[in-house]
Formats: sequence, C-alpha cells, structure tokens
Amino acid sequence: MPVHKKIRAYFSPEKKLHTSLKNILGFYPDNISLYKLAFRHSSAAKNIKKGVKDSNERLEFLGDSVIGTVVADYLFKKFPYKDEGFLTKMRSKMVSRAKHNQIAMKLGLNQLIEANNDRFGSKPSSINGDAYEALIGAIYLDKGYKFAQKFILNRIINVHIDMDEVETKEVDFKSKFIEWAQKEKKEFEYETVVDGTTVPDKQFVLNLLVDGEIVGHAQHLSKKRAEQLASEDACKKLDI
Amino acid sequence: MPVHKKIRAYFSPEKKLHTSLKNILGFYPDNISLYKLAFRHSSAAKNIKKGVKDSNERLEFLGDSVIGTVVADYLFKKFPYKDEGFLTKMRSKMVSRAKHNQIAMKLGLNQLIEANNDRFGSKPSSINGDAYEALIGAIYLDKGYKFAQKFILNRIINVHIDMDEVETKEVDFKSKFIEWAQKEKKEFEYETVVDGTTVPDKQFVLNLLVDGEIVGHAQHLSKKRAEQLASEDACKKLDI
Repeated sequence: MPVHKKIRAYFSPEKKLHTSLKNILGFYPDNISLYKLAFRHSSAAKNIKKGVKDSNERLEFLGDSVIGTVVADYLFKKFPYKDEGFLTKMRSKMVSRAKHNQIAMKLGLNQLIEANNDRFGSKPSSINGDAYEALIGAIYLDKGYKFAQKFILNRIINVHIDMDEVETKEVDFKSKFIEWAQKEKKEFEYETVVDGTTVPDKQFVLNLLVDGEIVGHAQHLSKKRAEQLASEDACKKLDI
Repeated sequence: MPVHKKIRAYFSPEKKLHTSLKNILGFYPDNISLYKLAFRHSSAAKNIKKGVKDSNERLEFLGDSVIGTVVADYLFKKFPYKDEGFLTKMRSKMVSRAKHNQIAMKLGLNQLIEANNDRFGSKPSSINGDAYEALIGAIYLDKGYKFAQKFILNRIINVHIDMDEVETKEVDFKSKFIEWAQKEKKEFEYETVVDGTTVPDKQFVLNLLVDGEIVGHAQHLSKKRAEQLASEDACKKLDI
C-alpha cells in the first residue's frame, strides 16, 4: 500500500472501519464508501431519490452474481470429470442463503452491519448473508474481478467451506423451510391435494401454504419426498 | 497477435475454425480446443469417462454465469438510481433463452455447431443459445474475465441488444411457453383447480400440465394473469 493511502487511512474519520476491514479482508480498501454501503441494511437506509435507498441491496445483487461465477469457475476446474448437473447442484449448496449467513458470521461481518433494529422485531436471518454478498460486490467494484476471485478462493472457500461435507450432504429443504417459518413467525401447512394411498397411480400431490397462500407444490409417489420437493419449491420461491 | 501464433493458425488443421472465429469474435483464440468443445452439442459428444461426455454442457454452465455477472455489472452502472428488483428483472430479460438463441443466430454460431441430427427429430430450440453460453465460457477460460467482459459489452450488448426494448417489453410467458410446447411437440393443458367465478374470494387456481405432469401452478384474481403466472412458473422449472 502506498504511503499516502496509509496516511489517509490513519487520519480518516472512518479509521475504525478501515482497520476492521483490513483485519477481515487482509487489504485496505481504496473506495471506502462502497464498503460502508455494503454494510448498510435497508432498515438504516435513507432515500437518495424517489423510491431509491442507499442500502446494500444493489451491491448484493452484483456480489451474488460474482460469487456465483467464481464458484462456477472453481468447481469447473476442481471437478474436470463431473457433468453440469453435478456442478449446478454443488454450486447451489455452496452459495445457499444458509452458507452465506455462516460465512458472514465467521468473518465477523455482523459487527459492521448498520441496521435500524426498531424497524423489525427480530433481525431477519438473511441480514448477515446479504451483507457478505454486498461486500463481494464492493470488492469487485473497488478492486476488480481477479481480486474478488482471489479473496473468495483464499479467504472463503479454502478456509470456511468443507468441500467434502458439501459434496456428501443432501439439503434437507423441509427442515430449512420450517426453521425459516418459525423464525419469521409464519403459519404454514402441508396440504394434501391428492392422497396417494387412495388413488390407483399412488402419486401424492401436495401444496405448501404460508399464511394461506400456496408457495410450494409437488407430486411424488412418496409422501415424504413430496414434502421435501414442495419445501424446495417454496425455498426457491421465497428465496430462503 | 505474435507472428508464431499467426503461423500456427495458418498451418493448423483447424484453420477454418480459426478463421471463422476470428471473423465472429474479432480475435484469434489461444486454446482452440476450448472453442471446439464449446460448439459440440451433447448429441455429437463421445464418452470420455464413464457417464461424462466431451460436450459443451460444462462450458455452458460456466459461460451462463459469466454472462450473468457481466450483465449485472453493466446494469448496476447504467442504472445508478434503480433498485435491485429492477436490475434483476432487466437481467432476466437480457439473458433469457430466447435472447441467447437470437444472439447466437446473429453471430452465426449455428454454422459452427457440431451436432448429430440423427439423434433428435428436430433440433432443440435451445441448441444455439447453449452454444453461445458455452462460447463465453471458452473465452473466459482462454482469455480471462476482463476480455470476456469486453467481448460481451462491445460485441453483444452494444450491437445486438436494444436496451429500450428490453426496458419496456413485458415478457409474455404464456406465448413463450406455448411456442416451446409446439416446437417440442408436447401436450399441455391449463387446468382450472378452482374457478374464481364460483367462489367467494374469486381467486383462480390453475395448474399447467405438460404430458399429464404439473409443471406450473398459480393463483390470481384474474384468470388471464393466473395463466401468465403458471406459464412463468413452468418456464422457470423447464428452463425454457
């Protein structure tokens, strides 16, 4: 880092953020305002123009995509003899909301998030993962793709993701969904539309309702599997 | 381009592909085998290991993600005062299967695709768009992210995408779905589960069936809107 940057960082009013970021990221940011934005949850954001807030949601959109590409590249090279179905499945486990929340906590991002707690009873569970995605968006804009890629590989995947676990673990969407519903205090119901035991072809047809609205739908010979599939459908639709 | 590369390209047995690619892409590829792979449809692929083919599907997985990130970056910068909902919607229109098929045709990629026509009655409609995505995957691996980004911006977005049209046009998912079903010769049916006109709360509940299987589901006060939503659901599930 050039001396003038060190001096600027030292005397900057954002010195604390600078130092925290250096500790977490391993580098000093150039454009600190991007990182401040990355940690600003919409509850703490102000309107900058009609209908537009200075929250981290736009950076989250960008960062989410950058992570997806870096992980795609990583998996492409790590598994040269696996087909795209395998790669897709692995990626969706590596970039899941739950995984991003975990990573954010491990990095300690939760201490940097600016949110207005009065606006929600309990913090939405995704607030940390969203900040992680936004942070990657900020790094990408501040330092470029290659830098963001190295950060994700060296400081996230190699350190915080157990690839053997990712490869072997099947995602239990029903548990994931129920955990979300309980946290968000939502009423839900697995509604049997067709009972597989009473019809000749034995397919169970299920709807999953949240507060009376259908958010998931599935059919399968096994009721248990149909519940998993309906939950997976709901998790996708509700971005859980 | 260094002289030795030009000479290699000139005497290479893949000279025709080299020249075609130079014309289409505006540059000579370094690793020609990546581009050959990008144009090899699974119908023309051989098994390279048990269950793994040397088709373009893995490159397609990678390229699809790279395009998504480049477009996210482009939209982020082009629309500084639009929220992430707008950005997401714009991107999904810019990277749709239909749009990628169009781009592939405009680039003339269809002439480079290696496919075994005996294996399917009529060519799947997505074969060209898939090759475009795989080509971007190849460029990314061959030349890096920045190069792929410049290619997408200068040779695709600025030339082949009418941003005003993308911004104003609503996607008609029902037409899109029906077009696909007719092309693929699938039987389909919009099945009314609840007729909104006969119940107090007036919600229509619809299933969209393809060859007897539910692929889309929706409910809405308007039957027309419910059909659009069920079609959108089906398009997502079937990756149309």
